[in-house]
Amino acid sequence: MEFNISAGLFVAEQNFLPVDPGTLYDVLIIGGGPAGMTAAVYTLRKGLSTALVTGNVGGQMTETAGIENYLGYRYINGNELVDKFREQVMQFGIAFESGQKVKQLEPGPVHQVTLEDGRMLRAKTVIVASGKQSKRLNIPGEKELAGHGVAYCAICDAPFYAGKTVIVVGGGNSGLGAAIDLAKIATHVTLVQRRDRLTGDQILIDKLATYGNVRILLEHEPREIRGDGHVERVLVVDRKTGEEQELPADGIFVEVGLLPNSQFARGVVEMNEYNEIWVDCFCRTRVPGIFAAGDVTTVPYKQIIIACGEGAKAALTAADYIQNQK
Amino acid sequence: MEFNISAGLFVAEQNFLPVDPGTLYDVLIIGGGPAGMTAAVYTLRKGLSTALVTGNVGGQMTETAGIENYLGYRYINGNELVDKFREQVMQFGIAFESGQKVKQLEPGPVHQVTLEDGRMLRAKTVIVASGKQSKRLNIPGEKELAGHGVAYCAICDAPFYAGKTVIVVGGGNSGLGAAIDLAKIATHVTLVQRRDRLTGDQILIDKLATYGNVRILLEHEPREIRGDGHVERVLVVDRKTGEEQELPADGIFVEVGLLPNSQFARGVVEMNEYNEIWVDCFCRTRVPGIFAAGDVTTVPYKQIIIACGEGAKAALTAADYIQNQK
Repeated sequence: MEFNISAGLFVAEQNFLPVDPGTLYDVLIIGGGPAGMTAAVYTLRKGLSTALVTGNVGGQMTETAGIENYLGYRYINGNELVDKFREQVMQFGIAFESGQKVKQLEPGPVHQVTLEDGRMLRAKTVIVASGKQSKRLNIPGEKELAGHGVAYCAICDAPFYAGKTVIVVGGGNSGLGAAIDLAKIATHVTLVQRRDRLTGDQILIDKLATYGNVRILLEHEPREIRGDGHVERVLVVDRKTGEEQELPADGIFVEVGLLPNSQFARGVVEMNEYNEIWVDCFCRTRVPGIFAAGDVTTVPYKQIIIACGEGAKAALTAADYIQNQK
Repeated sequence: MEFNISAGLFVAEQNFLPVDPGTLYDVLIIGGGPAGMTAAVYTLRKGLSTALVTGNVGGQMTETAGIENYLGYRYINGNELVDKFREQVMQFGIAFESGQKVKQLEPGPVHQVTLEDGRMLRAKTVIVASGKQSKRLNIPGEKELAGHGVAYCAICDAPFYAGKTVIVVGGGNSGLGAAIDLAKIATHVTLVQRRDRLTGDQILIDKLATYGNVRILLEHEPREIRGDGHVERVLVVDRKTGEEQELPADGIFVEVGLLPNSQFARGVVEMNEYNEIWVDCFCRTRVPGIFAAGDVTTVPYKQIIIACGEGAKAALTAADYIQNQK
């Protein structure tokens, strides 16, 4: 990632305390995206002592340009919405730490969470809301040229490609969104999609069709990224015929899906084949006192408004759990 | 209800069409609260033809004074949020009708929905998001004095009780909220709660405790409402001792819970003992093509942000269902 417009990180913090290994929290929330922040508002309003640790505040919202399907805002920039969420959380006395990932979750009568720097936090309940991160293509050249033309965040990196030629990989909503953003400024955009149709919202498909500088290659996939210190060409294969072609490109945007940030919970809670944490309709895992919400879980559809709803559910289920323990 | 501050109803409509019995809609949404409106934004963005019929736009949001737990707004008035939702829905070409309830839902290869005025609408999928309405006490005097001192909507009716003596029945969030609103303006507020503790959020319990003009009667319940053309006294019983007392009161606010608006779907979809429509984690009922979302369902916890998330889920599940039918 060459440049990360993450305004949220520079907003003054308000009413929060440092996380404290000596405190037994009622609720420890892992993740500061929409699910985690909503959970925090709900547990704090219930009067529960709450700590939240997160790699970055806002999660995938910081990688989203314009949001048009979060109810209450007809249009809002991802980072603006993050700031509003953050402000709402920070009005309460929350123990909060950003820039810190979780290494290990250990269940018990008291659950223990080990941070990357070795500190250990303790809580009666844990809400895992650690979200997802971009999936890699795992093809030659990708790792070598990451940050040098290989990008995973259109909102972050699109501005660098004004007047250039780019490839977008993926025909879902994020691929379509990236292609639309790039079509506005790039000379030419090629959208490469494995499947035989685009899978995103019709409204985005229609919008993309209004740009004359976009070519869509269905049933194609990239095989190798080539260039000397920076992306110059991408080898693309036709999945039906096996025919290969080399497309000139200054950049390639990878929008092929997301991987759950659930490594620290492996072996602790049940997961599906995609490493999403299994939850029931109450956001319960199978481990008492450990709950999960949002994109890291098996919840169908990964959307901000859905993650928020799930965060609220997890918080209220955790509150009930604590109440019943008394 | 003596007076209904429902600003939302007077906002100019924008981009909608009348509902049309001659059209086979992709999606027919029953209900215009947070679940229904979110579902509409999602189906419309998917390019699906969508009709929405509702008794009132906003549902229970119009009966909520201040909302502090909808993420994105640290504080917003219920009707203001309704207007924002409505504006977001109305930007699309939706077939829309307010002030019209549903009489009957009939499932089939094409689902049929009969409105109270007899018109019949047809759709490939139906999303039931018809919400809940206030539960009655079912005690003598309640029906006779409804609208004459017996109230079910504190936000609507509280302003009439400045300088008066009132009783609030119910110790959950809505009862606490009503008591707080009334404590600010009434001479005296008595909160009557059946259970041995208040069940709402601690933050509301703490706030209520800051008012000197509030008395809380735990393990009590109202038995009769008395008065000549208007509430004058309420007979209250101590549930432990059976002792009765007559409290003078100018008004009684009933905040004892909600009943699902699911009558029209009885015998069609499965319901629990509270007449909530059973849904799985995808918002599916057991009838193919009929989905349900929000407070009318078995979803745990009835919250605006949760209803929104469920509305989005139901819409995306319906979109997948239609896609798979093709």
